Amino acid sequence: MGDIIVQHTELKYLVVNKLTEAGLIKEHAEVVADVLVHADLRGVSSHGVLRTEHYVRRIKEGGMNPKPFFSVDQTGPCSAVFNGDDGIGHVIAKEAMEQAIKLAKENGIGMVTVVNSSHCGALSYFVQQAAEKKLIGMAMTHTDSIVVPFGGANPFFGTNPVAYGFPARENKPVILDMATSNVALGKILHAREAGTEIPSSWGVDQKGNSTTDPNKVEALSPFAGPKGYGMGMVVDIFSGLLAGATFGPHITKMYGDYNKTRKLGHYVCAINPSYFTDKEKFLDGIDQMIKEIHQVQPAEDYNQVMIPGEPEQMKEERYLKEGVPVTESVYSYLISKS
Amino acid sequence: MGDIIVQHTELKYLVVNKLTEAGLIKEHAEVVADVLVHADLRGVSSHGVLRTEHYVRRIKEGGMNPKPFFSVDQTGPCSAVFNGDDGIGHVIAKEAMEQAIKLAKENGIGMVTVVNSSHCGALSYFVQQAAEKKLIGMAMTHTDSIVVPFGGANPFFGTNPVAYGFPARENKPVILDMATSNVALGKILHAREAGTEIPSSWGVDQKGNSTTDPNKVEALSPFAGPKGYGMGMVVDIFSGLLAGATFGPHITKMYGDYNKTRKLGHYVCAINPSYFTDKEKFLDGIDQMIKEIHQVQPAEDYNQVMIPGEPEQMKEERYLKEGVPVTESVYSYLISKS
Repeated sequence: MGDIIVQHTELKYLVVNKLTEAGLIKEHAEVVADVLVHADLRGVSSHGVLRTEHYVRRIKEGGMNPKPFFSVDQTGPCSAVFNGDDGIGHVIAKEAMEQAIKLAKENGIGMVTVVNSSHCGALSYFVQQAAEKKLIGMAMTHTDSIVVPFGGANPFFGTNPVAYGFPARENKPVILDMATSNVALGKILHAREAGTEIPSSWGVDQKGNSTTDPNKVEALSPFAGPKGYGMGMVVDIFSGLLAGATFGPHITKMYGDYNKTRKLGHYVCAINPSYFTDKEKFLDGIDQMIKEIHQVQPAEDYNQVMIPGEPEQMKEERYLKEGVPVTESVYSYLISKS
Repeated sequence: MGDIIVQHTELKYLVVNKLTEAGLIKEHAEVVADVLVHADLRGVSSHGVLRTEHYVRRIKEGGMNPKPFFSVDQTGPCSAVFNGDDGIGHVIAKEAMEQAIKLAKENGIGMVTVVNSSHCGALSYFVQQAAEKKLIGMAMTHTDSIVVPFGGANPFFGTNPVAYGFPARENKPVILDMATSNVALGKILHAREAGTEIPSSWGVDQKGNSTTDPNKVEALSPFAGPKGYGMGMVVDIFSGLLAGATFGPHITKMYGDYNKTRKLGHYVCAINPSYFTDKEKFLDGIDQMIKEIHQVQPAEDYNQVMIPGEPEQMKEERYLKEGVPVTESVYSYLISKS
């Protein structure tokens, strides 16, 4: 099946419909739609509207609270704990970042851990929230176990992404959003379907040996061996243990246990540059850094050195005008009557 | 030339002698010696006492202030800017982390940027400072340009390391200290001497193509392509621009310009877990995580899955008892009369 092109406004409308039909309150459905379509617009369809069906199922089977009551406990001048009451993660992470932004404006830094959440989608959305307010944004979330620790044969941590957003003056914000695995599981599933080999750095077989056969992959590899493994642990400590949540193999699976709430933790942080340096000089500095990186001589097979987040921002500009590619099966689901 | 085994107390004594002879005040020389020997004890000799000669030369040629006046500007309840007055980086980073620890104890978080510093040695030392106080520690520092951005043929950022330290109750702290390049330049120099090939992920030739010939390496590669490149940028924004310092190619070279002060920036942060969760539960959680990681089935070629920092801690235990291996040439320098 091929892709069809859908306007982002229509996509949002369809997602809101599906989620409200499932029982999610409308304001929440609108935020989720915004976060999902943000990912599709950036070309990160793995975190986009294709997940709608999953959320609907989890709501319907009781594994998510469609009418949560959020609470915030401010524990210090720059710290708070956000309780998501088992609501949908996108809304929870967005509200938690709003809280972090508020603290960063008032007191320089806002660091917020989140408990009782669920899958929150692409972290780029939340760090961009901070960057749009001319603050630095950070976000981390743990996910269910699928990545081997360095030297291990069985998975322990999840793909545990971490994201940073930095504001500029003239340029769009710098957005780095990366998993601590080398690649997403989706890439391996895709190679299985296509019948192609994979790079040996992507995954391991049941003995923990790296493999180029996608059918033998039992777990994902962390990026850069011990470094990605270490960062995956950092993410699970910040978003799991520091939030008072669980970790690694104890996390409820995303695809499965649909009647169980996931009890995920997140970590978000906003930093006000004016508490450390001249804010105007900081914003100019980011612009200058971007300009100079663009001037770096590209390697032989590249046209230009890009800034983190820039390829996604170029897609976003195009898809906002031309529409967003969505697979036929996802579109069929979104327009179906339930 | 081979290695000789020296007791860590003797090593410290020799380093203090050399640095005080060069004009560094004694309290500072003692801290530097402690940070350098910490690295040698952990087997990270690249950041150990072999650097003493370099610091002595920089002090003698005017590129470092041997009698600096430190000042701290607390800008908010959880933030401060530390001015190192062009002193030696090890002492500056340690004092800055002390400041961060103080703020974290008082107000939950301590985030300190550092200006007017110089090379500070292994970041593991500073995050361990926080972990020993049962706080989470983070540290970053930029370094001079040697790593290509992803898709680039010329270097832009330095090896820009980032470190995290997490306290446990029963276990030693979890210490992750990693460069954002795949490997240090030293490994490539070593392969040149040994006449061996290198993995293609280590460095690039003058056209930006990866190479297995160590003699063709013109710059280092970031770890995991765009991920390490992105993290290198994160480090240079936190420790450079956010501190009001410069970045990437504008940073004074470590080896060269010995009469110029380096004006490096650092970033350190301490987080008090009790502002986010039950502290005792947090410490137990880290112990539990360590225990469960140790129980992961090792991959075929490994004996056990290790915790970040554990291989270094095992070396430290051994070298504290048996003495530290130091190359003859480094030892000859340390015992030489100036």
